[in-house]
Amino acid sequence: MRVVTLGEIMLRLKSPGHERLFQSPLLEATFGGGEANVAVSLSQFGMDAAFVTALPNNLIGDACLRELKRWGVDTSKIIKTSGRLGTYYLEAGAIQRPSQVIYDRTDSAISNLRAGDMDWDQIFDNTDWFHITGITPAISATARDLSIEAVKIAKEKGLTVSCDFNFRQKLWKYGQDATEVMPRLMEYVDVGIANEEDCQKSLGIEADSDVTKGKLDTAKYKALGDAVLEAFPNMSLIAITLRESKSADINMWSACCNDGKNFYLSRKYEMMDIVDRVGGGDSFAGGIIYGLNNYNNKQDALDFAVAASCLKHSISGDFNMVTLSEVERLKGGDSSGRVNR
Amino acid sequence: MRVVTLGEIMLRLKSPGHERLFQSPLLEATFGGGEANVAVSLSQFGMDAAFVTALPNNLIGDACLRELKRWGVDTSKIIKTSGRLGTYYLEAGAIQRPSQVIYDRTDSAISNLRAGDMDWDQIFDNTDWFHITGITPAISATARDLSIEAVKIAKEKGLTVSCDFNFRQKLWKYGQDATEVMPRLMEYVDVGIANEEDCQKSLGIEADSDVTKGKLDTAKYKALGDAVLEAFPNMSLIAITLRESKSADINMWSACCNDGKNFYLSRKYEMMDIVDRVGGGDSFAGGIIYGLNNYNNKQDALDFAVAASCLKHSISGDFNMVTLSEVERLKGGDSSGRVNR
Amino acid sequence: MRVVTLGEIMLRLKSPGHERLFQSPLLEATFGGGEANVAVSLSQFGMDAAFVTALPNNLIGDACLRELKRWGVDTSKIIKTSGRLGTYYLEAGAIQRPSQVIYDRTDSAISNLRAGDMDWDQIFDNTDWFHITGITPAISATARDLSIEAVKIAKEKGLTVSCDFNFRQKLWKYGQDATEVMPRLMEYVDVGIANEEDCQKSLGIEADSDVTKGKLDTAKYKALGDAVLEAFPNMSLIAITLRESKSADINMWSACCNDGKNFYLSRKYEMMDIVDRVGGGDSFAGGIIYGLNNYNNKQDALDFAVAASCLKHSISGDFNMVTLSEVERLKGGDSSGRVNR
Amino acid sequence: MRVVTLGEIMLRLKSPGHERLFQSPLLEATFGGGEANVAVSLSQFGMDAAFVTALPNNLIGDACLRELKRWGVDTSKIIKTSGRLGTYYLEAGAIQRPSQVIYDRTDSAISNLRAGDMDWDQIFDNTDWFHITGITPAISATARDLSIEAVKIAKEKGLTVSCDFNFRQKLWKYGQDATEVMPRLMEYVDVGIANEEDCQKSLGIEADSDVTKGKLDTAKYKALGDAVLEAFPNMSLIAITLRESKSADINMWSACCNDGKNFYLSRKYEMMDIVDRVGGGDSFAGGIIYGLNNYNNKQDALDFAVAASCLKHSISGDFNMVTLSEVERLKGGDSSGRVNR
Amino acid sequence: MRVVTLGEIMLRLKSPGHERLFQSPLLEATFGGGEANVAVSLSQFGMDAAFVTALPNNLIGDACLRELKRWGVDTSKIIKTSGRLGTYYLEAGAIQRPSQVIYDRTDSAISNLRAGDMDWDQIFDNTDWFHITGITPAISATARDLSIEAVKIAKEKGLTVSCDFNFRQKLWKYGQDATEVMPRLMEYVDVGIANEEDCQKSLGIEADSDVTKGKLDTAKYKALGDAVLEAFPNMSLIAITLRESKSADINMWSACCNDGKNFYLSRKYEMMDIVDRVGGGDSFAGGIIYGLNNYNNKQDALDFAVAASCLKHSISGDFNMVTLSEVERLKGGDSSGRVNR
Amino acid sequence: MRVVTLGEIMLRLKSPGHERLFQSPLLEATFGGGEANVAVSLSQFGMDAAFVTALPNNLIGDACLRELKRWGVDTSKIIKTSGRLGTYYLEAGAIQRPSQVIYDRTDSAISNLRAGDMDWDQIFDNTDWFHITGITPAISATARDLSIEAVKIAKEKGLTVSCDFNFRQKLWKYGQDATEVMPRLMEYVDVGIANEEDCQKSLGIEADSDVTKGKLDTAKYKALGDAVLEAFPNMSLIAITLRESKSADINMWSACCNDGKNFYLSRKYEMMDIVDRVGGGDSFAGGIIYGLNNYNNKQDALDFAVAASCLKHSISGDFNMVTLSEVERLKGGDSSGRVNR
Repeated sequence: MRVVTLGEIMLRLKSPGHERLFQSPLLEATFGGGEANVAVSLSQFGMDAAFVTALPNNLIGDACLRELKRWGVDTSKIIKTSGRLGTYYLEAGAIQRPSQVIYDRTDSAISNLRAGDMDWDQIFDNTDWFHITGITPAISATARDLSIEAVKIAKEKGLTVSCDFNFRQKLWKYGQDATEVMPRLMEYVDVGIANEEDCQKSLGIEADSDVTKGKLDTAKYKALGDAVLEAFPNMSLIAITLRESKSADINMWSACCNDGKNFYLSRKYEMMDIVDRVGGGDSFAGGIIYGLNNYNNKQDALDFAVAASCLKHSISGDFNMVTLSEVERLKGGDSSGRVNR
Repeated sequence: MRVVTLGEIMLRLKSPGHERLFQSPLLEATFGGGEANVAVSLSQFGMDAAFVTALPNNLIGDACLRELKRWGVDTSKIIKTSGRLGTYYLEAGAIQRPSQVIYDRTDSAISNLRAGDMDWDQIFDNTDWFHITGITPAISATARDLSIEAVKIAKEKGLTVSCDFNFRQKLWKYGQDATEVMPRLMEYVDVGIANEEDCQKSLGIEADSDVTKGKLDTAKYKALGDAVLEAFPNMSLIAITLRESKSADINMWSACCNDGKNFYLSRKYEMMDIVDRVGGGDSFAGGIIYGLNNYNNKQDALDFAVAASCLKHSISGDFNMVTLSEVERLKGGDSSGRVNR
Repeated sequence: MRVVTLGEIMLRLKSPGHERLFQSPLLEATFGGGEANVAVSLSQFGMDAAFVTALPNNLIGDACLRELKRWGVDTSKIIKTSGRLGTYYLEAGAIQRPSQVIYDRTDSAISNLRAGDMDWDQIFDNTDWFHITGITPAISATARDLSIEAVKIAKEKGLTVSCDFNFRQKLWKYGQDATEVMPRLMEYVDVGIANEEDCQKSLGIEADSDVTKGKLDTAKYKALGDAVLEAFPNMSLIAITLRESKSADINMWSACCNDGKNFYLSRKYEMMDIVDRVGGGDSFAGGIIYGLNNYNNKQDALDFAVAASCLKHSISGDFNMVTLSEVERLKGGDSSGRVNR
Repeated sequence: MRVVTLGEIMLRLKSPGHERLFQSPLLEATFGGGEANVAVSLSQFGMDAAFVTALPNNLIGDACLRELKRWGVDTSKIIKTSGRLGTYYLEAGAIQRPSQVIYDRTDSAISNLRAGDMDWDQIFDNTDWFHITGITPAISATARDLSIEAVKIAKEKGLTVSCDFNFRQKLWKYGQDATEVMPRLMEYVDVGIANEEDCQKSLGIEADSDVTKGKLDTAKYKALGDAVLEAFPNMSLIAITLRESKSADINMWSACCNDGKNFYLSRKYEMMDIVDRVGGGDSFAGGIIYGLNNYNNKQDALDFAVAASCLKHSISGDFNMVTLSEVERLKGGDSSGRVNR
Repeated sequence: MRVVTLGEIMLRLKSPGHERLFQSPLLEATFGGGEANVAVSLSQFGMDAAFVTALPNNLIGDACLRELKRWGVDTSKIIKTSGRLGTYYLEAGAIQRPSQVIYDRTDSAISNLRAGDMDWDQIFDNTDWFHITGITPAISATARDLSIEAVKIAKEKGLTVSCDFNFRQKLWKYGQDATEVMPRLMEYVDVGIANEEDCQKSLGIEADSDVTKGKLDTAKYKALGDAVLEAFPNMSLIAITLRESKSADINMWSACCNDGKNFYLSRKYEMMDIVDRVGGGDSFAGGIIYGLNNYNNKQDALDFAVAASCLKHSISGDFNMVTLSEVERLKGGDSSGRVNR
Repeated sequence: MRVVTLGEIMLRLKSPGHERLFQSPLLEATFGGGEANVAVSLSQFGMDAAFVTALPNNLIGDACLRELKRWGVDTSKIIKTSGRLGTYYLEAGAIQRPSQVIYDRTDSAISNLRAGDMDWDQIFDNTDWFHITGITPAISATARDLSIEAVKIAKEKGLTVSCDFNFRQKLWKYGQDATEVMPRLMEYVDVGIANEEDCQKSLGIEADSDVTKGKLDTAKYKALGDAVLEAFPNMSLIAITLRESKSADINMWSACCNDGKNFYLSRKYEMMDIVDRVGGGDSFAGGIIYGLNNYNNKQDALDFAVAASCLKHSISGDFNMVTLSEVERLKGGDSSGRVNR
């Protein structure tokens, strides 16, 4: 099983602990981004995962490449070009203070890529699954075209296509709204991954619920899934993550999925003392791709994905550095956190 | 609106994370102290704030001055003298283990200041508000005289005077008790700020409640406020913070205020995973001064002050490094801590 | 009152904060091990405590010796030999992710010690109490013989002997199970210290309860204590710690003890935001030894031990770096965690 | 004496110690840039110094502003706009391995400024000296126009204008070479500051010497100065720094200056174990501006500038965090480095 | 060109900066070992390099594997077994205080490997060069047998075999001396790499010189090379590194080589302020293998190797994290260390 | 051989690496002071060493006590009193920038001690040698009286008394100069230890040399020693350290001694890249005390002391954390700094 993901990987610069940005003169420098995070998850679970992007041809691009190799991701299809590496600054919130993400992605190498720049025949050779997110089409008009080209060719070649809607308000700046672009992408997507806000902001499909309250009504989520599947008949499954945010440190975490016939709901995890919330959704996407390909029922796939992404909240950095057996143990019910010695 | 605060700023030496003091050979070195913390809060909220003190004429005093400038505080009235910079050591508690504060303030530059050393005409030029706390009169007999001189002249010049009672048992060592000195100060105070213990230990006015239990009865706090206002008829408002300490990491936080006519009670915040509790009261004082000057009703002023000081508990260091818009968002009701990106 | 403890002290290598091992290229290097931890606790509480072991004759053994001296432990009876210092790697869990302990103890200096290598006459000179754990007999066949020799001679010399059963699945590798060895040791033990799993795995005596659920039934624990005391009539007291693990960060902590006549149950502490859970049991053992020797009733001794070990969960590192007065304050009921200034 | 400097300040991200970039996941985050560095130097020496630039209106721009305030620089004329904060990555070389600087300045706030965006009447109010460098005109065509506008107006208003040529190969990318632009700027410059390579690459005026050899011939430098002054008759003084680079850690440092009548040569300092070489030239520029305004002969001014910049090599970060008295002591001849206690 | 290296990779635990081991409770944790270091060098220079070893099947072995992948080394032939990861502790010396290396390699996974455990047909498939050192045959009797098997089969399959003698006094503990084993290995070696002490202690062939004096006589080194080549007629080239140790921080570094016909001597580098001296010899070995395969004369190959290993002394960690172009620039003569911007 | 030293131990707060104080918000917190440093040296060399002082009865005094125990110093005679722990701030110089020491010793516990506070019978029980420095009599008038009492009683009890003159300009503030007090102390001193400046400033005895030049004339030092011995006939030996300070990082280090009959001169060490220069003189004092008691000629004693103190310059912190064998190796002539593995 070979999976290819396409997207932007960024330098991630985080202030230490719960410090505000530049409170002290240190930043933790790692790398991450939605689609790369998915590739790392899949590689960690033992799958053959390739990540495709453009990186700048300098020491920073080199370091990023090394980090992907470290986690076993196939980087052989990555293009080196001019431009810079997109960067994001992260400040971890605490209690009632929210985390801050500041994007500094102008002129990133991938934002300058155009349809036609990638050799899809080589990239998709011997590949079964292609994953993309709503971030790449948001970066620039050329990246939008590249994204649509990618899913179209993937579909033509018979790959399963998954897409995490991943709506980011601050990115859609080139003159089109998400709701103008994302539906075009959806025509080629088999598996949709989203949260409530994503559905509304990316596709214009709403659930009747208020995310700032934290109270969730799973019935509404079934209806939301139904609406998405109805709008995009080629889509065979839509998985929705359900985050109830009590505070920056305390979230409830669960998910549901909907395949047109059945509605599946996961266990809900109470996550106190969250270590790092960024990449939580990506780790769910990685989990659901693994699950759908390695379990023969959707409940197990969903439960695996929720357990994997629950564990992500205990890991600092974008990548979900957990092992298959760790996810399986939590999925199996042991959430006691007792020392393993 | 120009505000002047007078008091002692100290070097703050804290062991890293939750480590005990000197457990490993590192200390985090910042600066802080009740009245300086208020000046920084006001400057952060966009007000013109000056801090007045005496600093030693050496590299340590210079660094302290730079830190105040960094946060936009007007330092032009600070005096450089001999003596040392008062220092305090801090160890962050955890769970049932309390935080430890060790004062090392002997012979600090400000403790040697005398009434007459300050040029109040210059300092109070074009100024509307003067803030002091019960710490300065506790440091030394000469600092007591300076404090009384300051509030008296401020009052004469028509400034509004606020005072945070801030009772510190370990400081009153020069031969007088707080209850002998603080009532004299109160004669010139318009706005009192306190917690329950402060009222009792500074003024001898008690609420019938036990702070070690954590159960609070707001009715009693109204009565306490009434008693203070009755004792000091010149005082037009008394604000009282209500902290329920479940453990070193978990506190409930709210406040009330009393203007003789009405009693106002704030929302209560549940603060799990406190990052740094020191300076919480000072950030409330800064908030109430901002609020009374920028909202036209006391409920809003109180709500602003409680939101500001709630956020302080998520910030390491004495200074409340939050922005006006962050406080306003929390005051407005969004305490979900969702990532801001 | 002089207490001697015998066992293995290890180099403890921990990844920073909640990071996974080797996530960043730093390890926190301290020292610890069950019996050394007990000696440090006793020394902290003002008792005369000696630790006996074998250390390698190199810079690492020297550093370990210095650390024991730092905490006031008598190290004069420690033997320097060949071999290495046993090492363990620790990764702190978070939320639902458990902590990981990896032992690297092959060929440790103490594992090569044999019965007869120690001069017990000198070691036990002027000594009242001897403490050992189930770890030493698990390390190697020679260490097993040494352990049995030690308790036997201690008993002959009239010392009180305590043993923390401390079952470690991964250690029993030399051909005998714990249940074959530990009962032989028990013949010389006056005070047993254990948790539920220890009783079952070390002695084959079970309580009818499931530790992975977190629900505890104290009645069963009385029965368990009765069973142990019945099986080993020389044992006059068995103390059992009761940990309910909600997650890696949140545990409930209490204990009971049983002297054949009475059953004592402690207060239960809710430990949110645990700083370091390793060494929790050892700090209880240290507390119960102190308590039995310094209070004249067992309820107080038990309460002291539970308060001491509750505080340990707020301290990073194996050693329980708290003072007698801190434990006494918590035992006295003040768990509010209010700042001490 | 009020001095204004105009230019770009950047976020400076440096790997720790001598590590390669991203060798470990930490970066030291400070701020710096040629003209800001000069303003900080002047402020440290007690002069009234303002820095003018455009900063992005986000948390990163705010932090940059705070850092300038910390060092006493007047930031009241800084404009907040869109765009990003230019960034540079720094890796400290060692022995034969050179330091690496990677610029990431695309789309910086200042690169988008245009002639006319600044209110020069306000900025130059009550000002005596204006300082610019060859970096700003290299950033973009609009920044070039802004630079020329600035020196022209400064000259018209009677300010003394200084310019550090500061040639940076990698910046001149908008279609003009330095030699096309810099001579136009020179028409308004009174005091030129340069090294050998700058004269050649910025003005096309060469000294007959090879900087990669490290051997310097001061006679040639007199000729070079003469040539520059001849080419730009309005320039009354040209100061040239002379760096002999033995290795990344070991440099010889001296300077000369030429006022058309006399040639002045400084003492040569042997700098072993350089701490941070970046900002060395800027600290010379700051020193010469201070010197020319505070000494009544050029030899003293030059000696002050060389001593100041020699000390800079012992300071990590772009800013020359030394005091006037420290520079004066070294200028006075005490280079023994004996402990000051 | 594919190169395979065989050997032990260890966890490297170093105290920070110049601190003594355990002076503060931190260790820098990286990975390294002679043959792995060579593989990383070759990979950095763009060659296809595989490293073969046995790693323990635990989190520590996993992390080691990830680090090799990060640097592009082919790890597909590495075996996972029981045992531990060999460890070494490093303390960086300074001035007259030597660096300390403490080996903790007992029972390492590779020490338990036996001849026959490796599938040489697969490992050597499509391979041109095999590199081994004198460390592996020193670890254990079984590792000795494995080493001899490896060179023998490599030779049979037509690979070029290189060996760095790398004498380590503390390792030869299983009953045979280096001089009994190494000559047997030499029968299959084409390219020998050594320093003076290695030749004497590994092969019993001496140069008439005293390494503790630091004075070197290159004539003697020619004679030494001649003697080695005479003793082992199959060896076609012997390269000898010449280190003159002035202090822990200051070394002179050069090398010579001898192919039976000609004697080549490199430039001598003066290395002041050495950052990390460990792995210097390995980086030379990597350089000579690259050089012999990529230059068509031995002087260039030698010069490349010396430049590469000179740069290693500026890099912390075992791996020589430099690029081909950086080595070529130094080889080309630019040792000025001027900032590259 | 039991040695007692008396003096002040301080908290030492140092900025990291070569950073200026408070450049970043971290301080390295260790402990040190002349006489405690000597006690640690002697303990490291295997002698029985006790340190006598007064420490404040708080967490800071406790930590200081633990640190002394860690290094094997007998702390049983230390008094706990009120007052604070003296503190000093240290900033490491580099190149031409000198290190800065800022004393913050007001009201230290020892400065309040009076003659009669110590139980000299107990302290000097079974003791052979007493060491004091010129720092203690400089602290306060009462500490002066205590110092004189101490040497007088030591002499009466037949101990050998050594004194390191250690002149500190900033300390003599209670109304007497060093030259008024130190000669009184000298009447009881057998072994004097000093540098040139100490002799002049403490005793008013001058050598005709200029320490700011760095050129030394050993003949003058013989004359200086003769003059001291002549002035104080009871003194049987005067040892003088000779530091030539090229820069903050580069010093030449040697010493001489004079017993009235012979003049001994040591080897001169070239110390490049000094790690920490503070405590260099104390480590010489420790070395000479060890040497005089363990070698049977003065040349060896002197050579040991110079080798020990040369190594100190490679160790960060006040304490000379080196072993006897390390000093003996350097004394024996091996200063090559080759890796010890």
